[in-house]
Amino acid sequence: MIIIGIDTAIRKTGYGVLELTGAGSLKVLDCGVIANPVKLPHSECLRRLSGGIRELIEAFHPDAASIEGAFASRNIKTAMILSLARGAVIAKLAEHRIPVYEYSPKTAKRAATGSGEASKEQVAAMIASLGGLNVADIPNDSTDALALALCHGTLAMRPGGELLLPKPV
Amino acid sequence: MIIIGIDTAIRKTGYGVLELTGAGSLKVLDCGVIANPVKLPHSECLRRLSGGIRELIEAFHPDAASIEGAFASRNIKTAMILSLARGAVIAKLAEHRIPVYEYSPKTAKRAATGSGEASKEQVAAMIASLGGLNVADIPNDSTDALALALCHGTLAMRPGGELLLPKPV
Repeated sequence: MIIIGIDTAIRKTGYGVLELTGAGSLKVLDCGVIANPVKLPHSECLRRLSGGIRELIEAFHPDAASIEGAFASRNIKTAMILSLARGAVIAKLAEHRIPVYEYSPKTAKRAATGSGEASKEQVAAMIASLGGLNVADIPNDSTDALALALCHGTLAMRPGGELLLPKPV
Repeated sequence: MIIIGIDTAIRKTGYGVLELTGAGSLKVLDCGVIANPVKLPHSECLRRLSGGIRELIEAFHPDAASIEGAFASRNIKTAMILSLARGAVIAKLAEHRIPVYEYSPKTAKRAATGSGEASKEQVAAMIASLGGLNVADIPNDSTDALALALCHGTLAMRPGGELLLPKPV
C-alpha cells in the first residue's frame, strides 16, 4: 500500500510517500517540501502546490492520502489562507480519485513514535529507523507529512483496520 | 475579451462567461450553476467544482477570471469551507494561467447596475438588457457571477483601465 502524507501550507508544504507491506515493512519512496517564496501571489502558490501534488501522484500512484485536519481555532485570516492551500490539494487528490483522510498532528505523531508530543527529530529518527534511511536524508519540513502517512498506513494495514479509519474528507 | 465570473461556494457555485468588445457590446456566452448535493463529501464537491471550472476554461478560453473577495468577518468554519472551494477554483484557473481578480459583491453590483445594493433581479435585468437575452435565461444563482464578470470587463476595457485594475490574486 502506498500512502502520501501531506502537511499543507501556502508557503511550505511537506510531503512524504511511504510504501507499507502486510509484513510490516516500510519504505520511504520520497519526501521533501514544495516551497513557495514569500513574494509569490497566492494564485501562483496554489498553481505550484497543485502541480507538485500532481507530479507526486503520477510518480507514485498512491492508494490514499493522509493530511492534517483543519483547526478552526487559529487566526481567521491564517485559517482562510491555509484552507485555500488545502482546497487546491484536496481537489487535485480527488481529481485522481485518491481517498483523503485527516488526522490531527498529535494522532500522527503518536502513531509514528508512541507519543503525541514527539519532536520533529524523534519522528525523523523513527521513520529513518523503520525505513532503513539516514536521518539526514529526511528534510525537517517533511517529518510531519511522513508521520501522517505512517499514521494512516499502520491503521489501514492493521487486520480489521478499515473499520477504525476515519471517514474520508 | 472573454471574462469568467465565479461566485464560489462549496454547494452552489454560480458562473457567468461574458464577451466584451471595445465597441462596448456584451455577449453572454454561458451562465449557470455548479451544484453539489448536500450529502456529498467535501473532496467530491471540490472534484466536481474543479472539473466544472476546467470544462468552462476549455470551452471558452477566458482571458481573465473575476471572483468574489473573501470575507474574514464570517463564521470561521464557514469561512474555512468557502476557502477550500476558493482554493480549488483559483488553483484550476492558475493551472491554465488565467489571471484572477477579486471584487466585493458591492463593487460588482455597482459596476453592473450603478447601485451596490441592487437585487439579483435588477442585476439579471441589466445583464439581459445589455446582452440581448431574456431574463428568464439567467439562473438566479448566476447573477452575482455575471456581475463579477461585467465589473472586471468594464474596468479592463475602459481606456487606461489596466491602471485601475486591482492586483491579481
